Formats: sequence, C-alpha cells, structure tokens
Amino acid sequence: MSGDSFSGIVRIEAGDGPGQPERTSELDALYRSFEQELLVPLWTEIGDLMPTSPRSEALPHVWRWNEILPLAERAGDLVPVGRGGERRAIALANPGLGGRPYATSTLWAAIQYLCPGEVAPEHRHTQNAFRFVLEGEGVWTVVNGDPVAMRRGDLLLTPGWQWHGHHNIATRPMAWLDGLDIPFVHATDSAFFEFGPDQVSSTRTPDRSRSERIWAHPGLRAVSQLADTPSSPIAAYRWEHTDAALRDQLDLEREGHPGVVEPGHAAVRYINPTTGGDVMPTIRAEFHRLRDGALTAARREVGSSVWQVFEGRGRATVGDREWTVETGDVFVVPSWQPLTVGAETALDLFRFSDTPIFERLHQARVHEDGVPR
Amino acid sequence: MSGDSFSGIVRIEAGDGPGQPERTSELDALYRSFEQELLVPLWTEIGDLMPTSPRSEALPHVWRWNEILPLAERAGDLVPVGRGGERRAIALANPGLGGRPYATSTLWAAIQYLCPGEVAPEHRHTQNAFRFVLEGEGVWTVVNGDPVAMRRGDLLLTPGWQWHGHHNIATRPMAWLDGLDIPFVHATDSAFFEFGPDQVSSTRTPDRSRSERIWAHPGLRAVSQLADTPSSPIAAYRWEHTDAALRDQLDLEREGHPGVVEPGHAAVRYINPTTGGDVMPTIRAEFHRLRDGALTAARREVGSSVWQVFEGRGRATVGDREWTVETGDVFVVPSWQPLTVGAETALDLFRFSDTPIFERLHQARVHEDGVPR
Amino acid sequence: MSGDSFSGIVRIEAGDGPGQPERTSELDALYRSFEQELLVPLWTEIGDLMPTSPRSEALPHVWRWNEILPLAERAGDLVPVGRGGERRAIALANPGLGGRPYATSTLWAAIQYLCPGEVAPEHRHTQNAFRFVLEGEGVWTVVNGDPVAMRRGDLLLTPGWQWHGHHNIATRPMAWLDGLDIPFVHATDSAFFEFGPDQVSSTRTPDRSRSERIWAHPGLRAVSQLADTPSSPIAAYRWEHTDAALRDQLDLEREGHPGVVEPGHAAVRYINPTTGGDVMPTIRAEFHRLRDGALTAARREVGSSVWQVFEGRGRATVGDREWTVETGDVFVVPSWQPLTVGAETALDLFRFSDTPIFERLHQARVHEDGVPR
Amino acid sequence: MSGDSFSGIVRIEAGDGPGQPERTSELDALYRSFEQELLVPLWTEIGDLMPTSPRSEALPHVWRWNEILPLAERAGDLVPVGRGGERRAIALANPGLGGRPYATSTLWAAIQYLCPGEVAPEHRHTQNAFRFVLEGEGVWTVVNGDPVAMRRGDLLLTPGWQWHGHHNIATRPMAWLDGLDIPFVHATDSAFFEFGPDQVSSTRTPDRSRSERIWAHPGLRAVSQLADTPSSPIAAYRWEHTDAALRDQLDLEREGHPGVVEPGHAAVRYINPTTGGDVMPTIRAEFHRLRDGALTAARREVGSSVWQVFEGRGRATVGDREWTVETGDVFVVPSWQPLTVGAETALDLFRFSDTPIFERLHQARVHEDGVPR
Repeated sequence: MSGDSFSGIVRIEAGDGPGQPERTSELDALYRSFEQELLVPLWTEIGDLMPTSPRSEALPHVWRWNEILPLAERAGDLVPVGRGGERRAIALANPGLGGRPYATSTLWAAIQYLCPGEVAPEHRHTQNAFRFVLEGEGVWTVVNGDPVAMRRGDLLLTPGWQWHGHHNIATRPMAWLDGLDIPFVHATDSAFFEFGPDQVSSTRTPDRSRSERIWAHPGLRAVSQLADTPSSPIAAYRWEHTDAALRDQLDLEREGHPGVVEPGHAAVRYINPTTGGDVMPTIRAEFHRLRDGALTAARREVGSSVWQVFEGRGRATVGDREWTVETGDVFVVPSWQPLTVGAETALDLFRFSDTPIFERLHQARVHEDGVPR
Repeated sequence: MSGDSFSGIVRIEAGDGPGQPERTSELDALYRSFEQELLVPLWTEIGDLMPTSPRSEALPHVWRWNEILPLAERAGDLVPVGRGGERRAIALANPGLGGRPYATSTLWAAIQYLCPGEVAPEHRHTQNAFRFVLEGEGVWTVVNGDPVAMRRGDLLLTPGWQWHGHHNIATRPMAWLDGLDIPFVHATDSAFFEFGPDQVSSTRTPDRSRSERIWAHPGLRAVSQLADTPSSPIAAYRWEHTDAALRDQLDLEREGHPGVVEPGHAAVRYINPTTGGDVMPTIRAEFHRLRDGALTAARREVGSSVWQVFEGRGRATVGDREWTVETGDVFVVPSWQPLTVGAETALDLFRFSDTPIFERLHQARVHEDGVPR
Repeated sequence: MSGDSFSGIVRIEAGDGPGQPERTSELDALYRSFEQELLVPLWTEIGDLMPTSPRSEALPHVWRWNEILPLAERAGDLVPVGRGGERRAIALANPGLGGRPYATSTLWAAIQYLCPGEVAPEHRHTQNAFRFVLEGEGVWTVVNGDPVAMRRGDLLLTPGWQWHGHHNIATRPMAWLDGLDIPFVHATDSAFFEFGPDQVSSTRTPDRSRSERIWAHPGLRAVSQLADTPSSPIAAYRWEHTDAALRDQLDLEREGHPGVVEPGHAAVRYINPTTGGDVMPTIRAEFHRLRDGALTAARREVGSSVWQVFEGRGRATVGDREWTVETGDVFVVPSWQPLTVGAETALDLFRFSDTPIFERLHQARVHEDGVPR
Repeated sequence: MSGDSFSGIVRIEAGDGPGQPERTSELDALYRSFEQELLVPLWTEIGDLMPTSPRSEALPHVWRWNEILPLAERAGDLVPVGRGGERRAIALANPGLGGRPYATSTLWAAIQYLCPGEVAPEHRHTQNAFRFVLEGEGVWTVVNGDPVAMRRGDLLLTPGWQWHGHHNIATRPMAWLDGLDIPFVHATDSAFFEFGPDQVSSTRTPDRSRSERIWAHPGLRAVSQLADTPSSPIAAYRWEHTDAALRDQLDLEREGHPGVVEPGHAAVRYINPTTGGDVMPTIRAEFHRLRDGALTAARREVGSSVWQVFEGRGRATVGDREWTVETGDVFVVPSWQPLTVGAETALDLFRFSDTPIFERLHQARVHEDGVPR
C-alpha cells in the first residue's frame, strides 16, 4: 500500500495507565508503523471509546424563548425563505458538540419562522421531522398534498420521505419548534433529499387535514387503510385531544384510580395508530403535565431528549445543571444524565427523544431513583 | 385392546366412487376390524372432510328484530336473571347446525334483555365477548370494576377472562346484541369459566368509563400504560366517534379523496389501540355505512360473519338467499358464501366476524368479484 | 319469517337447576316460540357451553401398533391407492367423538401404507400435514416438485397448499404416521383442496431434498431466501439431527449444565427457521427422550396432543387412564387432561399438538404440578 | 443566558449560493448574535447536513493482511495483554474519518493477536462484537462461562453485555478479525462497560461450546430454551457448516435449481435461530463464495460494510477505487458506494455490515444495477 498519501491522519499517543506497554523506541517505531498503515491500537483508546456508562459530549443546556424568538424575528427581516436555503430555521447548537447545529448527539431542534405571505418550498428527505407549536396560527403545512393547519399546542408530523412545504396565510408571522433526527442520520450516512415544487401543492386551508379525517377517530381504523406504516399517518395531533387526555389522567388520580405516571404527573405519548408504537422510527414525542408543586423522580435514560416548556414555570435539573424554566424555554438532556422536573405552577411540557432507536436495537436502559429497569 | 366397550362407535360404509376398493367379503371383514379398533379409512371420508372449497353446514339466515324482540320481552316476564342462568340471553340457532345455539360454526349471537332494577351477576370466561346496542340506554356493564354505560350505537367489549356484570338503573328494559366466540372455543376445548359476586362490583354510573378516559384519545397513549394487551383496553367504542368517522369518509369521497372502501361504501374497523389490530384475538368488529343506492361488490371470505342492520333498509344477498333487511334484523354469512349488500335508503350496519382466527393461522382468503386476494 | 321449514331443528328442554325459570305453561309456550324462531336460551345451555375448565368430548385412548399395522397391511391387499381415494390412510377415531375420524377434537392421526411400486397421486389442500416415520424406508414424498426421502425417525412436512404425492420405489411396503389439522379446519370451515397429476412430478430419489440443501444448515440462511414463510421451508427433519440434539441435552445434564426440560427428560421442538417458531401455524411437533427411570411432571395444557412411542417402553398416564406403551403405540391427550410419562427403558417419543392455535389466539394455558403458568 | 462562557463555539460563515441572504452588516450582526446564543442557521448548513444521497466521510480503502499481520506480531512482542488495555486489538482507521479507529462511520474492525499462554481478561460491554478466524487455532473465548474454541473459518459471537475473555493454550500465537459496533454506539452515547475477572472463568477446552450443543442442530430448538433473545445464542458458527451450505448452493445452481444469489455467487447469512433474523441487533454477518470468473452485480446500500477475503483472489471495485484482493485483505464499503466483486480464482469472502440498524429504523435502501429496491 502506498500509505504516503494518508500520512498524518492517524496520530497515536503512547499512554501511561494500567495495561499500557512500556515506552521504548521499539514501541515508538511500532506506533509510527501503525500510523503509516492507518491502524490504531485499542489499548490507547479504550477509555474514551468504551466508557463504563454513556459520557456524551453534549452538555445539558437551556435556550430561552425570549432570547431566541427576537433573533428569529430579526432573521425574518434579513433572510429570505426559498429554494436553496429551504427554511428559515435556526438550530440550537449544543455547547459540547463543537458548534455543529445539533441539540444533542442525535437530535436537531430549531426555531422556524415564517412571515405573512411566505412560502417554504416543498421538498422531502429521509430525515424524520415534526413541528410543535408554542403559539400562533395561520400557517398550513402541506404533507403529500394534504394541507395541515398549524395551531397552538399541535404536533405536526412530516415523517421521512414525505413531501412537505409551508405557507403563511395570516397577517402575522408565526414561529414554531422543528424537531428532526438530522444528527443521527448524518452520523449513519443515511440521508437522501429531493427538491419539490417551489410553491405548495395545495393552497386550501381546511381546519382538519384529510389525514385526521381518516385517522384521528379513537379506536377506529378505516377499512380502506389496513396496511401498517412505519410512521404515523396522522399529520396533526391536536391540542384539544392532548389537553383532554392529560386532564382525564389527573382527574383519575384525584378519584383514586390509575392513570398518571407518578403523583401529580400526567403524560401522553403520541403514537402511530397502525401499530400503537412511536410516531416515527427514530423519534418519540410526548407531552407532560405536572400539578403545581409536583416533582418527578430522577430518571436517567440511554439516549437524549429535548424539552420545551409549553406553559407554566418550573425547575429543571439535568446532571449538575439546574434552571428555572418558563414558557417557550427549550432544554436538552444528554444520554444518561439524570433529569428531575419540579413544577412551580401548573406546568405543561412537550418532549421529544431518540429512544425508539435504542428500543429497536435493544440498547435501551432506564434508571429511576436507584432502580434500574 | 379390549375393543368391545367401544363397539358401535365407528360405522364404516363402503363407497362406490372413483378410488374406492371393490366391495368384497374380505373388504367387509376389514372394515369390521377397523370399527373394532376405532379406525376410519380416509378413502371413504375424504369427500366430506376435504372439500374443494369450504362447505359450511351453517346456512345463510336472517332473524327479524320485530320477531325476536317480543320473545325477549316475554322472557323478561317469565325468566329471572341471576346466578346459574347468568344472563337472559337468547341465542340465534343457525338452521344448518342441528339446533345448537350457534349463529355460525364459530360465532355466537344473542339478544340479551335486562329489566329495570335487574342485575346480571359478575363472572368471567375465556370466551371473548362484546355487546352492540341497537337502541335504548340505562344499563351499565361493569368490566373489571370499571362501570361502562351502554348507549345506542355503542360497541362494548368484555374480552376473555375479564370480570363483567350488568345492571339496569333505568325505568325501562333494555335489549342488545351479544357476540361471542363460544362455538369456536367449544370446538377447540379451551373454555374456562369462573363465578364472581352476585352483585356488580361498582354501582357508579359515569358517562364515560375509566378505560375511555385513559385510552379513547385519538393518537395518544398514556405513558403509564405502555404494555400491549392481546385485546383492546377500550371498554366502550362510542357511537359519536363511529358516526363521525363514517361521515368523514363519505365527505372525503364527495371531495374526490380516498377514504371509502368502494363507491358509496364507508367502513371502520374497531381496533385495539395497543397494536392497531383487531379488538380481540378471535373477533373482528366493524361498522359499515352505505349511501342510498350503493351496492357492495360480491365478496367471499374464509370464515363467517354476523351482520345487524343498525338503521335503514336494504337488500342482502348471501349465496342463493336474498332478503330485504331493516333496522334490527340480524343475518349470517357462512364461510365462503358470497355476500352483496345494496342500500334502499341510507344504510348503517354493524358486523362481526371470526376473521382474526384465520389471519393469525394463515388460513385467510378473500375473493372479490372474481379477483382472489 | 316462515319458520315452518325449520321446525324440529331446535329442541329446548326446560331445566331445573339454580337460575332456571319456573316451569309453567307460559314458559313452555315461550320455548316453543323460541324453537319456531330458531332461538336457544343461554340459561338452559350454559353448563355444557361454558364449563369451568375444558371438558373435551375426546377421551384418552391408545392404539397399539401391533394391532393397527396388520390392518394396514391387509388394506394394502384389498384397497388400491389412486385418484379419488387419494391415500391409503387409516385414521384413528377417538372413542369420544362419535366415530368421526378424529384423534382429538382438532387433530387427525392416521397410519398410511404404501406398497412397492405404488403412487399416491399429487394434490394440495389448506390442511397442514406431516409424516413421521417409525420404521422402514424407500418412499419419496414429492413436495412442490422436490423429492424428499422418508427414513426411520424423520419428520416430513407438507404444509398447507403445497403440492405433494408419494411413491414407493423399494421392494417392501412402508407404513408411517400422518398428522394433520383436518378436524380443526373442518370445524372452522376453512378447507380448500385441489387435485394435481396422477403421477408424482419428479421420480428422482436423492438422499437429501433441495429444501434441506438450502435450509438445513444450523444458524445459516441462504441470502437468496430472505422472505419469511408461515410454515417451515424444511421438508425433512432428519433423525440423525434429532438424535444428536437429544444426546447433547442428556450429556449436558450429566455434566451439570442446563439443557434438559426436567431431570432425565430431553426434548426438542421442530421449528420454522425463518421465524424460530412452530413448523406450521396450527401444529407443534416435538421429540422427547427419557432416561430409563425418568418420570415427567404431571402437566395439563389447553389443547390436545398425539404421542407415538418411537422406541422403548414406558407408562403413560392421561387423566384417569394409564397404559404401558411400547414402540409404535399411539396415544392421545385431550385438552386439559393431565399427562405423566414414566420410562421403563430408555424411551423415545414423538409428539404433535395443536398448541400454536392457542398461543396465537391468546388462549394457551399450562398447569404443571399445581403451578399454573 | 450568560453566553460568554460559550463564546467561540459556534462559527457561522455567510454563504453565497441560491437562497442565501444578502451579506450586509445587519446580517453579520445577526450571525454574531446567533453565535452568542448557540444558534446555527439551517440555510448555511443544509448542503452538508442534508445531501441528496449519502455522502459518507469514510473512504473506500483496503488493508493488506501481509502488512498488518507483521505489525500485530510485532505488537505481540512489545505490548502486554491485560487489565486496562484489555485486548491486543489493532483497529483499522478509515482515512476519511480523521484518524479515529473506525473502519467505517459505524463499524469497528481490528486484528487481534494473542500469544501462547496469554489471557485477555473478562469484561462485558453493550457494544456487540464478533470474531472471524482467517487462520490458526488454539484460542478459546469464554462467553458467559461457556468455553468456545476458535478455529479457521469460524464466526464467534459475543453479543452486547455478555461476559467474555480469551486465552491461548496453543504453542503458537493466533490472530483474528474483531468486528464491533463501537463507532455507532459512541455516536449515539449508549456505551456501558464492566470489568470481570482477570482470568477466564473456565479453562476447559472442549471442541464444541455448550451453546452449540443446545442450539446448532438444524431446524431444532431445545424445549428448555423457548424464550427469544435479541442476539443469537449460538456462540460459534463453524466453518464446516458454512462451507457445506455454500457448496450446496453452487451444486443446486449446477443442477438448474434456485439457491444462489446470482450466477456463480453463493451466499449465506448467519442468523439468530430464535427469530430467523440477524445475529445481533446492529450487525449483519454473511459469507460469500464466487466461482472462478463470476462477477457480482454493482450494488449500493444504505449503510457500510467490511469485507475480508477468506481465500482466493479477485478484483473489488468500490466507488472509484479498485483493488486486487487476496487472502486476508480487508476492504471497506462506505454507505451508498457501489460495490462489485469479480473472482480471479474461486473466491471466499466474509462480510459484515450495519444493515440491521437501517432495516429496524426503516432507513434501508438498496440499489442494484440501476434497479432501486
């Protein structure tokens, strides 16, 4: 092999710890030969490569809605939306991940901003995506030709390889949270992308999408739609359903019946009705509601998650960081960092995570208050 | 072996068709020896045992609501409800099945009748069961301690081995349709039964059951309830959801979008939200709505089904039988008999079948208008 | 409804037990009306229909090889094999099942006998079938064109809807055990049957079938064969593999390692390598080996099984029946009857059962020595 | 937020392409604010983040056995094996991945070398691992207490979280190929690791492991082992079985029957017998055999693979690279790079890949000779 062209790529540093060979000139020569042949010893790398428990480079961090929203508004003035840039989306860059636009090692989170009359052109990609709406309305996302209204509290899906574009028919701008599995797909080299029309394929603005009219009836499935799909066929999970389900859980708790996750803590998971499982193969989405004063058990999980406060105020503790969080604030929980949330008012939180990846690959672990599961 | 005690059980008749042996005294002696040893030749039986396509002994038949309801009312006068008899349920006996209380070879269908103040005591059994309500209200079914109101158009489940009883708190009697897999469970020797309390374990009368408050939110799953169950955890599928889903399908058809099964024919399947599959392992339940004038394609299926007209009038053709059917009428479709339904008014029909058995055992076949699937 | 044509079908007998109505002339008139309208009350039937645990009509029974083999030989003299009769198969008729050719409520077991030069013509049917060979060789079963040698100790599959015929190229007759799900398929009205050629489609006589050459390599799967199939693609499970697996288990036990089912009791299940599950959707097949003196724990199961002694002598206890059984004897275990087998020599037994039906429909139960599972 | 501590992490460079905003001082100010708040615009990054098809940073590359084996031997002289370093494993570092010890973006491949008398101490980790043996023998891997002989042509598994150590009882050193999912587990922050004893927990040296005695019987499953496992319970896939399966496929091709993947190309996949699926949740392992002169169709796949020539000589073309490869050579195929292999002699190749990840997450794609699948 002509190793020359690769010289300088591999750099081996002799170590000193237990199990390391004695530093001799022969060893040095061997390491130089390794470098030449693009070889790296396990024994110098094992500590970083194979830690005793996950040591994510991502850090716990919070982004404040009242700091990022004004910047998105300013981008609304300065940055056009259209083909090429595709979206006026501004990603949260985890401070531990070297400036890459990654909220965690696997997840992307961004604030997207669309002004009145603007159109974000249609495209599709293998990355799974969703939007969660903190406030506002007036934008329709068109998913495979089906116009989907976006309103406060809604979760909107655009699973992998579905055409989608957005347009704002209102008189005010609208901002929302985008979530995707971009870092995961990038790390695994599995991204495909295709451009669609510059305009959205339907300008109709119905209250309910066709997907909801087929699929969002509890316990029912259209006989014309019996083939299961890897991702949910429901394009919009409406706030009124989420809110009602959470209220029911807290009412049941009050009446002494099962329903909540733990005292004062209601939670729903958004699901794919064709399977009862997660909405998309790589992304779990949930909504949590805490009574005023409730405190969640400390919980560690393999995999990372992103939380957005939907309403209320509380204390979030992630590893050795702790913050007061309020409406709109977004914080991230890297893999295996313990999380506790305490409510200082009634507190509503949206959450998404990469857990389905680990469950499907049998790498999931949960540890709660000293009880591994 | 002392075959004597079994004499007379096996009776072999020599046949004459192709492939049958010559009738000789030696053959006769051999057949007598077979009988003595409890043996039966395939060659005399194969025609009945292994037909070229299913030849159910069950016959197409219709029971008229206006004939069976008065008899149920009369039973209300004469027959008590209580321990031992357990239920004032009157089963439809298919005319081809020798007087056994079987609607088809695998399915039980009965009219159940409960007078004001009566209690049908709690029990549980491995047979899967449901109720479908044609008319009336005022009865609560208590399922594993959860009181479930029964109202017009609702489907109520009591899957295998769940405790259940009924009580009527209204001032009028109530009648409904019971469906179970009793014949199947009997044929396969898999029945267990256990008595519970003589009174229902809860006399509360809430509008919604606890199961609905946890489970009947579209696309949502309580984070406290992540274990899948073989049968649906939803105790009541409410008419307003069924009706809305069917309206949506017909509206979508009118707008030129997919949704209906075939022109003018909307249909929903009731599902287990933990899996997206059928409500119970042996029973499929569906609701069908035809526009006035719509006609379904002729369809044969392995397995049998029972239909009840919920509202409207139409023509049902099953094999060589044809009837005008109206509100409340119940008709049965034996295995592999072709079915067509034509609507003479807007027509709503409830249907249940044994299809999940065949799908799970890879014996399902469907044949539609000459197109086998 | 014109009930007249159905008169005499339903016969209701008033009962006397707890929960039965008072016998009055009004009740009698009501019951006559029920009969007229093809209706049957639950309260008169519930005891038989819904027993507290399975009460199969099938009885424990044993057929002696040295009694049935001579009758099969005699049939070899008197009964031709060919189109129409299809097979010289003589079925075991359970004494509790009214003379029908059913070994149990769901399973068919027969001795099949083929003379030198004879051909059992090709056909296919939705019933799942297998052969198990107690002794002899020289017959090839041709399965979908693939010739499969039949030899002592082999299990040969012909799953539902696969073409198959047999021909004997040896100089001696051959007898074997046929197992099918005929009673189950009959009870559920799901039988299809089709005639094929009168001759087998291949007269080649290789030692190994093509199916084995593709599939019977441990832990390996052909990259050309990645689609899973409901039934096993392995046409022949050879005795040398079965025997070796059982020897390994008993050796492991001797060395103090896990492997056997219980002390002195080794057992293997034949599986579908595409899924790791049962060989066919309705039939489980296993082979059991007991050390001399070993005794199995008493065990009840929902569903029935058929056992054939392959070699050795032992005591089989089924419910209140007990027999000494020897090579070739076939005995049946009806649903929920407790079974114990004790070995008086080293004892090898082949077994098949209907358990996959119950596992797939969530009706399976096992009860071992007082410990329900 | 006090952004100061994070200054310098995010660096945004204004772009010029289509869809980029006009470069103004206002835009510059906005970008500086983004950096301050740890925000990154999608529109400057989308080209790299979301390519139209996978653009792996990993490069096609080959490592020559006759270059790496001498270095491993030299490491045998200079580097001890023991606690801390754990293994004398030398990883292949893809030239496109910045010197990290990653063969591809998701897969680790290393040559491991163990001298006579040496012991690689026991540990366990969530990374899935296997060994493939090109040559030599005399080492036993002890997996959860079960000693597993390593011999030429064998595939040995140590799935995630199973204890394992190695010891060499022979008089000669032994080298083999290690494969793991280290890069994938690292990228997803899901690694756990635990130290075990310094010595192997069993020094027995049986020919067959206990796992094989239980599991490696074709089409058979121990009745004592009915619980499915995420990874294969077979610790060793022996060369004689692999070789026989490949011979059978090529013989079948010669006889005109199905079996091979394409003309002259036989292949087996190693499977988990409890499910029929891949041996481990993240790793697929296969063995391929080409007749002399055979040429495989060009094939692209999402995900990467590593190939080792087991015997013979051929031409491998990966993207725009082409090499003559011989016994022991290891080459890598990054995601979506087309691969063709041509045999210049009879050619045997071992292969492993990360495909199960993509299949389980519904991201798999294959493209063969212009035909996407």
